[in-house]
Amino acid sequence: MKSYTVAELLHSETLLQEVTVKGWVRTFRANRFIALNDGSTIKNIQCVVDFENTNEDILKRIGTGAAVAIKGELIESQGKGQKVEVQVKDITILGDADPEEVSKTILQQKRHTLEKLREQAHLRTRTNTFSAVMRLRSSLSFAIHKYFNDNGFYYMHAPIITGSDAEGAGEMFRVTTLDPKNPPLNEEGNVDYTQDFFGKETNLTVSGQLEAETYAMSLGKVYTFGPTFRAENSNTSRHLAEFWMIEPEVAFMDLDGNMDLAEDFMKSVLSYVLEHNADDLAFLENRLIQEDKTKPQAERSEMTLTEKLRFVIDNNFKRVSYTEAIDILRNSKPNKKKKFKYIINEWGADLQSEHERFLVEKHFKCPVILFDYPANIKAFYMRLNEDEKTVRAMDILFPGIGEIVGGSQREERLDVLKEKMAALDIPEEELWWYLELRKYGTAVHSGFGLGFERLVMFATGMSNIRDVIPYPRTPQNAEF
Amino acid sequence: MKSYTVAELLHSETLLQEVTVKGWVRTFRANRFIALNDGSTIKNIQCVVDFENTNEDILKRIGTGAAVAIKGELIESQGKGQKVEVQVKDITILGDADPEEVSKTILQQKRHTLEKLREQAHLRTRTNTFSAVMRLRSSLSFAIHKYFNDNGFYYMHAPIITGSDAEGAGEMFRVTTLDPKNPPLNEEGNVDYTQDFFGKETNLTVSGQLEAETYAMSLGKVYTFGPTFRAENSNTSRHLAEFWMIEPEVAFMDLDGNMDLAEDFMKSVLSYVLEHNADDLAFLENRLIQEDKTKPQAERSEMTLTEKLRFVIDNNFKRVSYTEAIDILRNSKPNKKKKFKYIINEWGADLQSEHERFLVEKHFKCPVILFDYPANIKAFYMRLNEDEKTVRAMDILFPGIGEIVGGSQREERLDVLKEKMAALDIPEEELWWYLELRKYGTAVHSGFGLGFERLVMFATGMSNIRDVIPYPRTPQNAEF
Repeated sequence: MKSYTVAELLHSETLLQEVTVKGWVRTFRANRFIALNDGSTIKNIQCVVDFENTNEDILKRIGTGAAVAIKGELIESQGKGQKVEVQVKDITILGDADPEEVSKTILQQKRHTLEKLREQAHLRTRTNTFSAVMRLRSSLSFAIHKYFNDNGFYYMHAPIITGSDAEGAGEMFRVTTLDPKNPPLNEEGNVDYTQDFFGKETNLTVSGQLEAETYAMSLGKVYTFGPTFRAENSNTSRHLAEFWMIEPEVAFMDLDGNMDLAEDFMKSVLSYVLEHNADDLAFLENRLIQEDKTKPQAERSEMTLTEKLRFVIDNNFKRVSYTEAIDILRNSKPNKKKKFKYIINEWGADLQSEHERFLVEKHFKCPVILFDYPANIKAFYMRLNEDEKTVRAMDILFPGIGEIVGGSQREERLDVLKEKMAALDIPEEELWWYLELRKYGTAVHSGFGLGFERLVMFATGMSNIRDVIPYPRTPQNAEF
Repeated sequence: MKSYTVAELLHSETLLQEVTVKGWVRTFRANRFIALNDGSTIKNIQCVVDFENTNEDILKRIGTGAAVAIKGELIESQGKGQKVEVQVKDITILGDADPEEVSKTILQQKRHTLEKLREQAHLRTRTNTFSAVMRLRSSLSFAIHKYFNDNGFYYMHAPIITGSDAEGAGEMFRVTTLDPKNPPLNEEGNVDYTQDFFGKETNLTVSGQLEAETYAMSLGKVYTFGPTFRAENSNTSRHLAEFWMIEPEVAFMDLDGNMDLAEDFMKSVLSYVLEHNADDLAFLENRLIQEDKTKPQAERSEMTLTEKLRFVIDNNFKRVSYTEAIDILRNSKPNKKKKFKYIINEWGADLQSEHERFLVEKHFKCPVILFDYPANIKAFYMRLNEDEKTVRAMDILFPGIGEIVGGSQREERLDVLKEKMAALDIPEEELWWYLELRKYGTAVHSGFGLGFERLVMFATGMSNIRDVIPYPRTPQNAEF
């Protein structure tokens, strides 16, 4: 008797005389109707038990959370709400779930807070919300790999443990095998890292970009997709200590090409999930509508989830220089009426999420790419413009979220790069290999970074970043 | 004028009047023939310079390693060795490469040792060998994602930083932000990890399996593909401190299903690269033949690279119990004649690579899956057989390499699992969430682990694991 997933049964073109399906009981109603789910889709399949001919002991054990194997026939549904259902001929309890115990967990079929679900993160993918989010996360991952593969990029695994802390993108975690209590000291009385595993101080990477540049300058088009880390004590709904990042890097590509690539990429991966994850998106869209009803009017989304995705896919991204954006913001109503938390007074100010969202949602009403930022608010490796004040940086701004992508054309001129590093006290010895790229056949090249969880938040409508990664790592929390 | 990659030009169906191509000069011969490479393929395109009408200063700067932009016409090649070539109309030097400086690097066109290439790992993908290896690595990665996606698996990102060290798969790296020199101590005089970033001691993961099980037991079929770590002081050609691992995990699947999955998976991803990476494989096959010629007869491969791949793809994997394998090995010629380094005397012995290779290469002459291993040489989470001596483990053995995949059916019975953990002093509190999977609808489930770099070594014929990952991390080495 062939085994089917719930998704296969629900999408079957024909009725089937003999099927086996295994999964977990979501509900068991009137001693007859099992709603069975196996994770293959957000939908349950209804399995109708012939309770008169079923052992009473078995009937008692068909409870929420139990794992069962069902044999039966796939027939047209006799009831409303589904096209097909399984007429159960035989049911085996694979694993019990004591109702008393289940009632203490989030498996119990009632509303639970997202906080409570986080405490039971090992069970939360057995709820509709989290199974939908994690299927979407998986689908987005595949869409990303597919996009780059289809477009001639090579996937590159940047190192996780790094011996340099030169990029300065944020605080780092130390990786060590030294005795934590009595570390060996050198003659100057400092920790003697020459005795550590790698013979020097090592940290968890904050970005694979610099290494990706070395691969772009040999293989042409590459991207990374791997975990990155920040040891920042930020307990917000937008920060994780461990998160995944996508970083494409392309030789011979300038900032315009970089903007073209990023726009095409974002549209492509979001189109992919619209096409492949309709059921999960429909569920999450509805979830968001319900959640919004509990909020004050001002905090509600102006667009539904699908509308937000279409807003990105269907609009051209408006390209605006930082300088133009500052002018627009300075003269905007919320700035003049002091509605912004941070008032924009002068050129050089770093933009906040409120400003970015104003540009996208109120002013341009489309996704926005800002470019040519002031040099002193951006990283050392960004290419200096002829004005010597701005760099060839770009940020992509999305509705509801603000910045989602940050990238730049890289400084390919050895002398300029050395000057920038000297000004920031970055020792050349730390990045000798990065500098050498500018010595042997340097060329224009560009790339960008996308925090994967930001993308998953955007595509699922989840508002806390802890709810879009399986096991979030945050200050004071590394459970599971 | 449209820009093309070298691969696009070489595969162009038609000749093209106006093309632009950018890349790095591999060689410049007779002031006329540039061999240009841009990483899109292992092959160079020949660009023929009209030296009489080219500025002499430019001609001088067209040296090995320089980055150039060439405009010209794609024509039928006038010479031998290539179908098409570019007749150069205009050449721009994008980035010079001083010949004096180049001669100190591996960019110089001559044979370099793999050790030397490792020291310049930021440049080594500008050689044929490493560009081929890294394109294959990328292609294998994509084949893996595609296989799982096509077969209904969800990709799951297991956490990298972990609060538990319970799996016991190996020594771990500590992750910390505590003051390295003067860590805070608690009342007992031990390091006070409650003051560390995560409020407890944390390490880098050695495996995502246990977390993957939580997702299999809700989403059905899942896999991880991410970095894992071992702080073992093994300076061998087969060990890395940081490496990537693939770990599928499937609910309701027993050991037979696990073997079916693993065999189908390995055949599928290797078929993918045979189909998509013919040029790179041809180069690496030849490289291996040349390398073999420098070795004593006994150490040479019996199969070419393609033959090894076909050996896996075309043969059924022979499934043999550990007990049968021990009988075969005990009675084998090399065991009786004491040719094995480790003589097999009794049931219970752990197999070495020499034994595994004997079974594959000499005895069965096909890939082998050994199953039902002695419980005491395998991990605690493997399902105990009725004999109470063996567990439902399986290892897949390949030619030239021995074990490449290790997996098992997992212990789904709460009481048996608890006994196993108690016997090994693994505290239940450490893995409370793992135990809970057996409490709420437990079921048969299985999975396996594949060290990605082992697979890349097999598919490329490289014999040192440091040469199949961009920036290898090993004891005393975390450069770049």
